[in-house]
Amino acid sequence: MRFSPLLDELIESLRCLPGVGPKTAQRMALTLLTRNRSQGRALANCLINAMEHVKHCKMCRIFSEIELCYICASAHRDSTQLCIVENPIDVIALEQTNSYRGKYFVLLGRLSPLDGMTPEAIGINQLKTILETTPIAEMIIATNPTIEGEATAHYIATLAKEQAIRVTRIACGVPIGSELEYVDPNTLSYAFEGRN
Amino acid sequence: MRFSPLLDELIESLRCLPGVGPKTAQRMALTLLTRNRSQGRALANCLINAMEHVKHCKMCRIFSEIELCYICASAHRDSTQLCIVENPIDVIALEQTNSYRGKYFVLLGRLSPLDGMTPEAIGINQLKTILETTPIAEMIIATNPTIEGEATAHYIATLAKEQAIRVTRIACGVPIGSELEYVDPNTLSYAFEGRN
Repeated sequence: MRFSPLLDELIESLRCLPGVGPKTAQRMALTLLTRNRSQGRALANCLINAMEHVKHCKMCRIFSEIELCYICASAHRDSTQLCIVENPIDVIALEQTNSYRGKYFVLLGRLSPLDGMTPEAIGINQLKTILETTPIAEMIIATNPTIEGEATAHYIATLAKEQAIRVTRIACGVPIGSELEYVDPNTLSYAFEGRN
Repeated sequence: MRFSPLLDELIESLRCLPGVGPKTAQRMALTLLTRNRSQGRALANCLINAMEHVKHCKMCRIFSEIELCYICASAHRDSTQLCIVENPIDVIALEQTNSYRGKYFVLLGRLSPLDGMTPEAIGINQLKTILETTPIAEMIIATNPTIEGEATAHYIATLAKEQAIRVTRIACGVPIGSELEYVDPNTLSYAFEGRN
């Protein structure tokens, strides 16, 4: 039971945000109304603009409001290296490491045919075109180390091998700074097998 | 370093929501763009409508888009009882208990002159008018049991006593279902003194 239908609607809408339950949504709505109305309006405008104008880069499928994102358009990036990731957020994570200067391809998902994620849905056709038309020396597969991520990696590796492109996979092992006693057995066994 | 100025703006804007830091804002923005664009647009509309049209009830100062909120307008609520709370969210909390059938007055803050929260800012003039013009049998002060909340309660109690209105304060003590060993000493000492 609340006081205003508009407020109820706002609370309900805020729940579309990930990790926001009824209590958090209520607090967000009331805080905006009490203290931050101008910021609430600004947020609404940003939402409309972003939902309307942010598309995908036509090369790498990252989010971009221009046709070719700044990474694809850059002459300073090594176009003979192609890193395959599942989501745009993975690109942010990798860029923050400052250790990769090649280009990306974003699958926007991972293979999971039962959920409708077929090879077409994750942009395999587009990836094939890139592999056939661009001279690529190394493809680095950086899908998540989960069952679906591994299956996707395997599928993509097959495509690359057809074009005689060298395929690498990001290393799995114990995270830097971790203590062995807290690392799960699966990871530890991977780290052991992959010793170098 | 991200891919799109509009996306950056959206992430920055989302941080006006309480409890949302840079990582959460990033996840929210990317989730909306990836999966929920229509819900993102709906959220923007709800925000605009609420920021524009949700005002305060002219009697009790609760959020309402109509002049008189449904509690103030209701004939089924006991208008001889007046409960004073700090924030609209407190009214929601009290209404959920289903144990109060009187009316409310929302201070929209608490006395804290150094932060600009003077008696005028928390609507004391309006409260005085209500006390002078409405026959009130009991005023229940439900400000938070904090230093400022107590100071505010004390100030309001003085006003009510001038009008010979009976003043009560919500009880402080150990929460139902709690275990004494985890209750802070201050609360425990209150509970002990207030034994009945």
